Amino acid sequence: MASDPGRILAGQKWCRTSVSGEPPRLDRFRNRRRFQSSTLNVTGISLTAVSAGLLACTLLEALSSDRDTAALFAATLLVGATGALLWCFTEPGTLRMRQIFATVGWTWMLTTLLGAAPYVLAGTFAVSGAGFVEQVVNSVFESASGFSCTGATVMTDFDNAGSGLMMYRQLTQWYGGMGVVVLAVAVLPFLGVGGLELISAEAPGTSSDRLTPRVSETARRLWVVYAGFTVLSAAALFAADGFASLYDAVAHALTAASTGGFSPHPDSIGHYDSAVVETVVIVLMILGGTSFSLHWRALATRGLPYWRNSEFRSYLFVLGVFSLGVVALLWLDDGMAFVSALRAGFFNVVSLGTSTGFGNAAGSATAGDYVTWVAGAQLLLLFLMVVGGCSGSTAGGIKVMRMRVLGLLMVRSVRKTQTPHLVMPVRLGRDVIAESVVARVAGFFLLHFLMMIAGLLTVTALGGELEASLGAVVSALGNMGPALGEAGPTASYAEAFSLPARLVLALLMIVGRLEILPILLAFVPHVYRAQALRRVIRR
Amino acid sequence: MASDPGRILAGQKWCRTSVSGEPPRLDRFRNRRRFQSSTLNVTGISLTAVSAGLLACTLLEALSSDRDTAALFAATLLVGATGALLWCFTEPGTLRMRQIFATVGWTWMLTTLLGAAPYVLAGTFAVSGAGFVEQVVNSVFESASGFSCTGATVMTDFDNAGSGLMMYRQLTQWYGGMGVVVLAVAVLPFLGVGGLELISAEAPGTSSDRLTPRVSETARRLWVVYAGFTVLSAAALFAADGFASLYDAVAHALTAASTGGFSPHPDSIGHYDSAVVETVVIVLMILGGTSFSLHWRALATRGLPYWRNSEFRSYLFVLGVFSLGVVALLWLDDGMAFVSALRAGFFNVVSLGTSTGFGNAAGSATAGDYVTWVAGAQLLLLFLMVVGGCSGSTAGGIKVMRMRVLGLLMVRSVRKTQTPHLVMPVRLGRDVIAESVVARVAGFFLLHFLMMIAGLLTVTALGGELEASLGAVVSALGNMGPALGEAGPTASYAEAFSLPARLVLALLMIVGRLEILPILLAFVPHVYRAQALRRVIRR
Repeated sequence: MASDPGRILAGQKWCRTSVSGEPPRLDRFRNRRRFQSSTLNVTGISLTAVSAGLLACTLLEALSSDRDTAALFAATLLVGATGALLWCFTEPGTLRMRQIFATVGWTWMLTTLLGAAPYVLAGTFAVSGAGFVEQVVNSVFESASGFSCTGATVMTDFDNAGSGLMMYRQLTQWYGGMGVVVLAVAVLPFLGVGGLELISAEAPGTSSDRLTPRVSETARRLWVVYAGFTVLSAAALFAADGFASLYDAVAHALTAASTGGFSPHPDSIGHYDSAVVETVVIVLMILGGTSFSLHWRALATRGLPYWRNSEFRSYLFVLGVFSLGVVALLWLDDGMAFVSALRAGFFNVVSLGTSTGFGNAAGSATAGDYVTWVAGAQLLLLFLMVVGGCSGSTAGGIKVMRMRVLGLLMVRSVRKTQTPHLVMPVRLGRDVIAESVVARVAGFFLLHFLMMIAGLLTVTALGGELEASLGAVVSALGNMGPALGEAGPTASYAEAFSLPARLVLALLMIVGRLEILPILLAFVPHVYRAQALRRVIRR
Repeated sequence: MASDPGRILAGQKWCRTSVSGEPPRLDRFRNRRRFQSSTLNVTGISLTAVSAGLLACTLLEALSSDRDTAALFAATLLVGATGALLWCFTEPGTLRMRQIFATVGWTWMLTTLLGAAPYVLAGTFAVSGAGFVEQVVNSVFESASGFSCTGATVMTDFDNAGSGLMMYRQLTQWYGGMGVVVLAVAVLPFLGVGGLELISAEAPGTSSDRLTPRVSETARRLWVVYAGFTVLSAAALFAADGFASLYDAVAHALTAASTGGFSPHPDSIGHYDSAVVETVVIVLMILGGTSFSLHWRALATRGLPYWRNSEFRSYLFVLGVFSLGVVALLWLDDGMAFVSALRAGFFNVVSLGTSTGFGNAAGSATAGDYVTWVAGAQLLLLFLMVVGGCSGSTAGGIKVMRMRVLGLLMVRSVRKTQTPHLVMPVRLGRDVIAESVVARVAGFFLLHFLMMIAGLLTVTALGGELEASLGAVVSALGNMGPALGEAGPTASYAEAFSLPARLVLALLMIVGRLEILPILLAFVPHVYRAQALRRVIRR
């Protein structure tokens, strides 16, 4: 067969021939019979990367607590072998737009499932007579919570895990954060998702980078910034008063960079009970919830482009206003001492406003335990959970930029009833947002709302109490972590929700992390029908 | 001064001269010094109409229980005199679009306040040592609940009011229903509100009627249909087994036509405990939640245009699906007997889906008391409260048509991520909805959502419990009546909410009834600035 680059690029199910007539050894390997599946191929790469982290955690475990070493080693082998096999024996096909979403969705679900292996093998959840099914469900929940950077936990006994395994738990968040930044800024621009066209509208200088073949280069740069930010965070935390151990500093830096929420301590940042540590963590969380392409531009231009970014300004404004509101409510309505109110209010607003989910309660019913706050302050936090951080960051939620577009859409609809022929484009900073993008943002909001209602219906039908379920569903979809009621910052989800409800919440976390569409389209059959049909036509 | 019809139409603050040189007696009266205020003039008409109803109730009271006759007579005089004075001594100015909303808003607020007079004068809420302030607040709440057709009550002792006063309470709903139909179909088309452009898109044959000077004729026809429907409802209820008294039949017919929710019995329809009565009430509620212009067309064409109306089909579909869902949950999950589940499920779904708010619980914790249902069934009801009935009906909520547009917007946004250049207009039946209308519907939804959050924040900050407050705010904005938790169908709002919270809920009911904008714009100062400025320029 003649060389046909177009056809090779387009991909075939079985590559029986090489490009040249007499293939060299390497080509023979390359052109081996490989199953064409982008999902499995991408999952392979992803699992291989996870196994590298697992190996490091195994070494850490062997050198420190040496408790779950065998389990971690077995998990490393399992995940690594699966990843390598999938990577080698599959090849990515040419994806059409509708299939990219499904691929991303399945990749995340498969990675989450296999990422639960270390917990299952180490018996992390084998406490107080939990059966095997409960162990598996809890492990999947913890894995989903980690990879989606949610930070909700079903762990009740933090001493039942070695320090290596706890570091793996932190690492899953870091992979999830990186993965999503790559998705959000490197993969998704091809797909014309609203949030990213918004970024393009905001920063036209860099948007061309993403829309050319140099997208992978952009992603690489973002990885470098992300890793660098994590290292700097660890250094800052280590330098901060209270973080005596490097282990703790790294563990919390992984959370801060990914705006995850896990901590090796059951009482999270409350463990240190130090205002200095909390201040450092607040700064890191705010930076983690900022667009990483903005960080990259700050590095590239050696300047501070933050204040010129209108989304960043709104983000700080929202955090500021909500902090003041919560502090005022705590001080005046709840009768808390002003200093305690200030500390508890600011920390928790930033923690939930950046979708991190760290807590600063030194114990149940102390100042930082927001479940005991007045209902008004809790509602402000609930609303913040919906907002989330900046687009292009590791934070979850609807994102500040979308909220601004929605707010402007609302204002315009009010003004149009007064002046029907008013022409009022939606602006962000100096840029006009196209009407098609505005409509898509509104559609995304409605979809988010529908997911919330569907999730709430399912979780309450599976036995959840209304207030805790509402908090947990909003928290899971926004990738926060702690919720309201029985699932607050000092509590575990294990007590508040039944096993099937935990699985639903685990799925909702992934749904929220990928901004709904990938998981939704992963279950829409016409994606596969179209793919199968095209294969038939090609033959 | 020369005759200048244009100037007369345009209106002047003080009409010092008549059109002719030597005015006859009638002209002298007409051209007396009148203060130009559309708000006060419209309020005058509205109060005069209410006083006519009050007079009838006074006669009823005198002939039956003769308990609050003096109070009702005093209230008739007060309301009638205020109305007549306002009507005679003010004149409507030419309104610009932005002022029409504010006028409508203030008219409703003033009518509600004066409509509370009978309760205050009769001392309806002077039970168990309530102070004067509490009596006034409760009276205003009851008045707002009546006029807005909500049907939430703070009445705890139903025997503390004569039958005439109870009939006035039912009548307020009927005025509110009529008033809103007039507003919605006769006044608002001038303003180009989204919901009505939707009606026009749905029924282009009648839309030209509304946009010509014949709007008042349309409104008159709708009044006739509304009154006729009420009479037929009363006859049907009187014929139904259980309604032995004509008084009860009329009282409940007034509620069914206006989809209000008040009943002279504390246990509402549960008082009769009859499946026949409940079936008749279900049919009447469904018809009350249907567009009244559709009823008019049914009369005019002597046909049944209902099934050809795509909104009506969706409305029945929503009621059907939710009924089946609730019945299934009650039967399978809650362990209720099938017949009880069917009766309780269908009745409550229709009652809340049409925004009526009748209950069929014979007492607390019986089958019809949905507060005791499983959380999933309660959530379905909560969602129904948001949906509401058809546009152009007396029902509240977001309306089925808007929900359909929002659903289609959502579907489109999902499909556009797969096929970015997809052209997919939003259709209702065979009609294409203009993009500007779609954007306004999305804006309205966001505004509704924001009102809900703002209301929830305020009510919980004023001491409401979270679940009861959520239910009450959704219920008030959707003009339902009963809420969740402590404010369920067999409970009174008086126990669950503080005095200021009750005032906020009363305002939210009016806000929900007028679809937010009139009340919102009533408090926007630039409306008045513009008006004052124009007066200055004219001088």
